Amino acid sequence: MIIVIKQNSKEQQVENLISWIKNQGLGVHVSKGEYNTILGLIGDANKIDADLVSGLEIVEGVKKISEPFKQANRKFHPDDSVIDIGNGVKIGGGSFNIIAGPCSVESENQVCEIAKSVKASGATMLRGGAFKPRTSPYDFQGLKAEGIELLLEAKKLTGMPIVTEIMNANHLPLFEHVDVIQVGARNMQNFELLKELGKTQKPILLKRGLANTMKELLMSAEYIMAGGNENIILCERGIRTFETYTRNTLDLSAVPMLKELSHLPVVVDPSHATGMSRLVKPMALAAAAAGADGLMIEVHNDPAHALCDGAQSLTPAQFDDVAKSVFAMKKALGE
Amino acid sequence: MIIVIKQNSKEQQVENLISWIKNQGLGVHVSKGEYNTILGLIGDANKIDADLVSGLEIVEGVKKISEPFKQANRKFHPDDSVIDIGNGVKIGGGSFNIIAGPCSVESENQVCEIAKSVKASGATMLRGGAFKPRTSPYDFQGLKAEGIELLLEAKKLTGMPIVTEIMNANHLPLFEHVDVIQVGARNMQNFELLKELGKTQKPILLKRGLANTMKELLMSAEYIMAGGNENIILCERGIRTFETYTRNTLDLSAVPMLKELSHLPVVVDPSHATGMSRLVKPMALAAAAAGADGLMIEVHNDPAHALCDGAQSLTPAQFDDVAKSVFAMKKALGE
Amino acid sequence: MIIVIKQNSKEQQVENLISWIKNQGLGVHVSKGEYNTILGLIGDANKIDADLVSGLEIVEGVKKISEPFKQANRKFHPDDSVIDIGNGVKIGGGSFNIIAGPCSVESENQVCEIAKSVKASGATMLRGGAFKPRTSPYDFQGLKAEGIELLLEAKKLTGMPIVTEIMNANHLPLFEHVDVIQVGARNMQNFELLKELGKTQKPILLKRGLANTMKELLMSAEYIMAGGNENIILCERGIRTFETYTRNTLDLSAVPMLKELSHLPVVVDPSHATGMSRLVKPMALAAAAAGADGLMIEVHNDPAHALCDGAQSLTPAQFDDVAKSVFAMKKALGE
Amino acid sequence: MIIVIKQNSKEQQVENLISWIKNQGLGVHVSKGEYNTILGLIGDANKIDADLVSGLEIVEGVKKISEPFKQANRKFHPDDSVIDIGNGVKIGGGSFNIIAGPCSVESENQVCEIAKSVKASGATMLRGGAFKPRTSPYDFQGLKAEGIELLLEAKKLTGMPIVTEIMNANHLPLFEHVDVIQVGARNMQNFELLKELGKTQKPILLKRGLANTMKELLMSAEYIMAGGNENIILCERGIRTFETYTRNTLDLSAVPMLKELSHLPVVVDPSHATGMSRLVKPMALAAAAAGADGLMIEVHNDPAHALCDGAQSLTPAQFDDVAKSVFAMKKALGE
Repeated sequence: MIIVIKQNSKEQQVENLISWIKNQGLGVHVSKGEYNTILGLIGDANKIDADLVSGLEIVEGVKKISEPFKQANRKFHPDDSVIDIGNGVKIGGGSFNIIAGPCSVESENQVCEIAKSVKASGATMLRGGAFKPRTSPYDFQGLKAEGIELLLEAKKLTGMPIVTEIMNANHLPLFEHVDVIQVGARNMQNFELLKELGKTQKPILLKRGLANTMKELLMSAEYIMAGGNENIILCERGIRTFETYTRNTLDLSAVPMLKELSHLPVVVDPSHATGMSRLVKPMALAAAAAGADGLMIEVHNDPAHALCDGAQSLTPAQFDDVAKSVFAMKKALGE
Repeated sequence: MIIVIKQNSKEQQVENLISWIKNQGLGVHVSKGEYNTILGLIGDANKIDADLVSGLEIVEGVKKISEPFKQANRKFHPDDSVIDIGNGVKIGGGSFNIIAGPCSVESENQVCEIAKSVKASGATMLRGGAFKPRTSPYDFQGLKAEGIELLLEAKKLTGMPIVTEIMNANHLPLFEHVDVIQVGARNMQNFELLKELGKTQKPILLKRGLANTMKELLMSAEYIMAGGNENIILCERGIRTFETYTRNTLDLSAVPMLKELSHLPVVVDPSHATGMSRLVKPMALAAAAAGADGLMIEVHNDPAHALCDGAQSLTPAQFDDVAKSVFAMKKALGE
Repeated sequence: MIIVIKQNSKEQQVENLISWIKNQGLGVHVSKGEYNTILGLIGDANKIDADLVSGLEIVEGVKKISEPFKQANRKFHPDDSVIDIGNGVKIGGGSFNIIAGPCSVESENQVCEIAKSVKASGATMLRGGAFKPRTSPYDFQGLKAEGIELLLEAKKLTGMPIVTEIMNANHLPLFEHVDVIQVGARNMQNFELLKELGKTQKPILLKRGLANTMKELLMSAEYIMAGGNENIILCERGIRTFETYTRNTLDLSAVPMLKELSHLPVVVDPSHATGMSRLVKPMALAAAAAGADGLMIEVHNDPAHALCDGAQSLTPAQFDDVAKSVFAMKKALGE
Repeated sequence: MIIVIKQNSKEQQVENLISWIKNQGLGVHVSKGEYNTILGLIGDANKIDADLVSGLEIVEGVKKISEPFKQANRKFHPDDSVIDIGNGVKIGGGSFNIIAGPCSVESENQVCEIAKSVKASGATMLRGGAFKPRTSPYDFQGLKAEGIELLLEAKKLTGMPIVTEIMNANHLPLFEHVDVIQVGARNMQNFELLKELGKTQKPILLKRGLANTMKELLMSAEYIMAGGNENIILCERGIRTFETYTRNTLDLSAVPMLKELSHLPVVVDPSHATGMSRLVKPMALAAAAAGADGLMIEVHNDPAHALCDGAQSLTPAQFDDVAKSVFAMKKALGE
């Protein structure tokens, strides 16, 4: 960490700051320039609260030199992490996987039909919501334990590993046979939940929060890894911006950037990001072209009423078209 | 809810949408205009997922008519809620309270000294962090249970009710004697935690998330209230914007706006919002002038090294000056 | 426009609003529901200031039904616009063009060398900054008129049409032989400049502002079109978000969304959006995969010192690789 | 400027960067640490494009030490600037002014009636829009030259200096007798306009852009000052955030922060920021409590139809109440 001291600061205040830093076990290299004094901290500067120091009256600015994430950092782990999901599925390291399934698990028939269909189109994992985070307490909160049971039925039928969201660490026993546990955007900084997941060895699909930076996403991955669980899959799912035509703004530059910063695999969810099925295909292609390790796509089967045709989820036929186009493009790109 | 259908939409698709809405137990009033067809939903439209409908190809737009929050809504509860904290302290309904104390509880001496001092300056409640949400797993996470014990010592000494943050519903037994439980910005949408707090009768100080709207804050209050706990204090503590000179941007228009929308009291935390002690006084005055029901201010006592003098927390002497000015201003405003 | 009146509003205030609307030449359809009264405006509701009405105490909310842009709207112009740039180059309607060149025009040698090189790699248009918008008045502001002369030299040499930015309508005479006039992000809402450009017939490349929505971009296009100039190319170049690892966040969902809303062609500038040459290739591929009508890429030739190798601009060799990959991918996607 | 070089960067690339910096006339102080090499630039680092350097592959980060604004910087001009408007009105340096008037100038009777009324309530300057920036080309664009004439009539009648917005430097001759020229939020980075205003000696009221930082606002002030015009009044008028209940979010921490960074006076416009007249009073009080040098408030007189009573503008009676409360509060605060 580098601390730039304001011009004309009182010597005594600078001395106080230096001795406070030293009290925390760090060395300080003082460099006096024509206009400013610069303090270079020697040792593990992560002990120092940069926000606190930034707020000091004598401080012009603070610059962190090293990234605060260690285990997630590609610097110390140059090779891609490959997360072994089981049933022959691996994410990261050059492989490309499509995770597909319904937004909410509704019935055995629904989830099994969709599972068979998306598998035939090339999906390698099944997703489905059992516990649903809802902004309103009056909205449907998912089938919960029963939903997980239905997903496990579909897994038995198709052999596809399953991904589903957790909202409460106390529910962990219900996730015993779940292959990948998803942490939703709103829980990305639920540090208590992250700590509990760090004690398991389950692969975790960690979604970026709606207004969180990549650094914050990586720090949340670090929380899980610090507990001993290195099986993290990062997921870009759209961030909040001023745009209103789309529900969120899919940040595809996060794909190459996160892969440069970290060795963890990165998948993209174009369904939630845009909120419109007609944007899923272009954004799925774009995500794959940007180098994503996989996609996570919502698929429904709803023959009775064609409502969802235009909404967030794709029909099985639309999904088949998206998957085919993505695979063709990946092939053309020589991957 | 009003749904505006796009011009030239296929009749069959419109019919599908109407029957899907009716299947959910709602009536539909269809109004065909020159350019657009408008569907007016009759009944409890909160059952309908507006995001889902917005994404439909035939839908030009969706307008919710009624606010999705009910129990927090001033419409159905015109009078200000007054939250009885105990020990003679009430928040809301015209009273004005200052909550003050250290960022983190560090020692009995520290918290007791600060408590006595801020009480003498006019504070009516004591705050202090025992469980600390930290972006990095490697940062100090607070004294935890011991921190709560120390706060209770200070309460015994001064008679001031205490406020401290919860991060995990499993810790609730530790909060038995805590007077007000704080939910931090990062947990504002930790719906599982909110549900558990709804089962208690403890006053809850609910902080607005860094990138959350007022509606989302009120929906989170609604989560707690839906469980049966109506003792909610809303807290504006700054939102994330592009500005970098200040840590966050304190949204003071949220004070009159939230009080118009809801009957719940609103307090303002100028310390976290700005991150700089020298901005606490102007923003505390501004918050009080805007009509806040109270303030929440960080105060430290750190005679050994004067580091924090310029950072987020005020010294007891600075706090005394702020409190005096705020009380004088409130008096001049005839309140 | 639909105006939702708050429950329990005073009849007189509602009557005042209705007569105010009628005074502006519009009809009003009043629909009284169980909880709310809804006013449906009949006629050209664009005369009504929605922000003004939203602010009224009796108004719960306002919903615009029709898009405020007319000439840019695909509804009234279902076919893609094809902008004829001259020298055989057309943008829109299925063609795909790469615009390439240096950030700033520096010398005849520089711009001519780059022009020849990018042409050989498949670029069809040459870009280069003569007038540079700079945040600081002390920064280099471009070669100005001389820069345009140098671009025209490169055009003479290679036959490539040229694109360069205008900052002041008074400079229009200097742009007589420029093929496409660029309006930069910071001038997107410089309405006086847009009006002047509307009086010409020059193709305009209109960049989206850093914090502007797609609707605002289309309204700015509408400003130019309202003056009689329909030759507009929209350009997505990244928006401001909280992310700091990348300079801006490239919003690729804007590509399919803008093309659904409007008939105008959409190109993407991955160089400015990311600020890092190593992100240009993945984002160029992603933009093309998302359906962009073209790309705008910065290329430098700077053999003396290899500084810029890692910065925003690509070397000619790097550009050649990007162009080859994009063309291969477009081919695989059957376009 | 400090440049932090990534660990394990190639020596040759670091050397290239150093010699590139030296070629631009700067010295470089190289400090090799355990993990990183740090380059400290000696001389006027404003010549170096920080964005360009940030994008380099070998660069971990860049930290600017000195603020890029010079003439607007309080460091080099410790005393408050006092802008002499004429007719006895001065802004800055401890005085407090209220600027009031209609959103748009509509008629001589309208503007004169409002002028007399707001003067009686304590306003010292008259505002009114003659040229109106409108998002849509089809919206009313103001009375233009005629509007300025009407403002001058009201000035003759009341002796109040007038403030009105400019949108095009070519209109400057029309502003000859205008006392303060306003630059609107959308033109804050219209650098060509700022340069022209820098050549005059007219006081300029410079509004902060909707998504601009304080640094960018100060850099735009610097543009005008670099041309020789030091008569700048900064204006906070709300920034764009995710909040939708209010039109914009008034950033009141900008008041003390801008006054710390710069010697220029800062006024606040609570009318545009909130878009609701019922929020004007609390936010006007809050702005004054935060230390603003003045307020800018919209007032209408519209007896025929009471529409605007709830919208952005205050009636004269409401304005009188706001002004009285603000003056009483300022007095209580001892100012």
